Amino acid sequence: MIIDIHGHFTTAPKALEAWRDRQVAAIGNPSAMPAASELRIGDDELRESIERNQLRLMKERGLDLTVFSPRASFMAHHIGDFQVSSTWAAICNELCYRVSELFPRHFIPAAMLPQSPGVDTASCIPELVKCVEQYGNVAINLNPDPSGGHWTSPPLSDRYWYPIYEKMVEYDIPAMIHVSTSCNACFHTTGSHYLNADTTAFMQCLTSDLFRDFPTLRFVIPHGGGAAPYHWGRFRGLAQALEKPPLQEHLLNNVFFDTCVYHQPGIDLLTRVIPVDNILFASEMIGAVRGIDPETGHFFDDTKRYIEAANIDEQDRYKIYEGNARRVYPRLHAALNTKGL
Amino acid sequence: MIIDIHGHFTTAPKALEAWRDRQVAAIGNPSAMPAASELRIGDDELRESIERNQLRLMKERGLDLTVFSPRASFMAHHIGDFQVSSTWAAICNELCYRVSELFPRHFIPAAMLPQSPGVDTASCIPELVKCVEQYGNVAINLNPDPSGGHWTSPPLSDRYWYPIYEKMVEYDIPAMIHVSTSCNACFHTTGSHYLNADTTAFMQCLTSDLFRDFPTLRFVIPHGGGAAPYHWGRFRGLAQALEKPPLQEHLLNNVFFDTCVYHQPGIDLLTRVIPVDNILFASEMIGAVRGIDPETGHFFDDTKRYIEAANIDEQDRYKIYEGNARRVYPRLHAALNTKGL
Repeated sequence: MIIDIHGHFTTAPKALEAWRDRQVAAIGNPSAMPAASELRIGDDELRESIERNQLRLMKERGLDLTVFSPRASFMAHHIGDFQVSSTWAAICNELCYRVSELFPRHFIPAAMLPQSPGVDTASCIPELVKCVEQYGNVAINLNPDPSGGHWTSPPLSDRYWYPIYEKMVEYDIPAMIHVSTSCNACFHTTGSHYLNADTTAFMQCLTSDLFRDFPTLRFVIPHGGGAAPYHWGRFRGLAQALEKPPLQEHLLNNVFFDTCVYHQPGIDLLTRVIPVDNILFASEMIGAVRGIDPETGHFFDDTKRYIEAANIDEQDRYKIYEGNARRVYPRLHAALNTKGL
Repeated sequence: MIIDIHGHFTTAPKALEAWRDRQVAAIGNPSAMPAASELRIGDDELRESIERNQLRLMKERGLDLTVFSPRASFMAHHIGDFQVSSTWAAICNELCYRVSELFPRHFIPAAMLPQSPGVDTASCIPELVKCVEQYGNVAINLNPDPSGGHWTSPPLSDRYWYPIYEKMVEYDIPAMIHVSTSCNACFHTTGSHYLNADTTAFMQCLTSDLFRDFPTLRFVIPHGGGAAPYHWGRFRGLAQALEKPPLQEHLLNNVFFDTCVYHQPGIDLLTRVIPVDNILFASEMIGAVRGIDPETGHFFDDTKRYIEAANIDEQDRYKIYEGNARRVYPRLHAALNTKGL
């Protein structure tokens, strides 16, 4: 089977955005704050939003299952306080859970966290616990910059993040390191902030000994690892200069890259440079780049075409499509087993 | 000949750093502020610092000429006010000028600017004029984030930067877009801040119509363009979604990439994806990555080896090594002509 480990619910019914707009408008004015219960989205609406969009494209492209999380750019942890983030995360996670219940063979949820800049990360644990224990989430998305482009939180190696890591280790779930909307005019959200965050997260891991403290902690760096594979020699050289072990030993038991790289040469580099055990299939569709590439006549984000054309053998392709996902996301593997998949 | 368009004076005599330390320590205490004249570095010291380091390696590697600018990580525009930056830039630019006078066949200077966060960029013009008119500088380094990792300045498309662009156009000189030290703990200077800045600058150009206002303005994005070539499909798709012209037309008359990518697969991707007319040879040695790659037995930053091994023809190699530099840096071309080179 083909597992896409990076999908967001970017096509949720409009009522979700309308509720969020009301929530944001009511910040500082408690009497206007909408209750979560005021958002009503029926199963038919949910089903339609998925069938017309993600599921249609998955079928067209031959993808079987998507690890499905709330829309990344809408997480917007910089907006409001912890309570605002908490209510919003609960709503978004519930929707992804419901999608997974409506399409149990095609979607399995991953959770966003109710992060808020400067707030103790232990505050995220109750939502995380609920998502894993009640909603069957197999991973989380962790935002390394809840400020939205101002980078005011400490690096991922800081103890600030440890409460989340402790719970991840306990549940044996990976985190995709994924920022949200940039509210810094310097950074275009999907064109620079996302990629910068990937590179930044990778380097934060490289300069630290985080995985000595958490040998089983696993991070998935999305968007093909930002700039890391293209500059693999630079990173190998920096690790050497910093007297770290070789990257394979220092990071590659814990750090994985997805295949959200939207052209053939990028995927060719990724598969040439990064060991196949560290590459997980993903497309992040329907996401940042929704158009058709005039050079190929196919969707930019139809990443399966690039994997098919890459110079790798069938065993490697199996690992990228399925085997690695089952290993890196053990709860996904267990859930698939339960479903006979 | 082989022109390296990206070299910094990273090996300056220790007296320079000692003077800078005194300057920084005296911020807020004018009576302790050292005069520029208190820094004394003799020609012999300068000559030795170059002959033992950059020039030795250039000869070993077969490089003829380096466009030589002050050490990027030491620009540190975030330190002190405009006056501090101004004195510091003048000192550093004078040293690179002196190197170019001592080794006129091997070094030609590019200037750092006395940028300071929040200060009108017109304040940089006198130093720029001096460097071009008196010191024969052929380019400038422009720091898109003088805050050092906090990204508090407007994007490069903002009119804030126009005074510099107007002077660049008048002199027909390119700018290398190059940040300095990160003072944000999230960003490792050479491992993430540099690469992020490259990607950010590229995307700032993509989302704007800057080159409509300045059709002859030229930016060199160092470090192989950050993440841009690896994610070229993403950027093509984003340009399309933003209803911009194709990248070739929208940006590639004005934006160029250097070859500071420290492994063969990275250079192979760069030369496969980016039109050869937009690639300029560079190594940024002696710089961020000074070690020997155990996988090859050669220096990571010996980028000529990767260009030699790339799947391009001799005409393309000529363009990367020399032809493009003469076109993108017309004052370099003129200076070489004057010297009979």
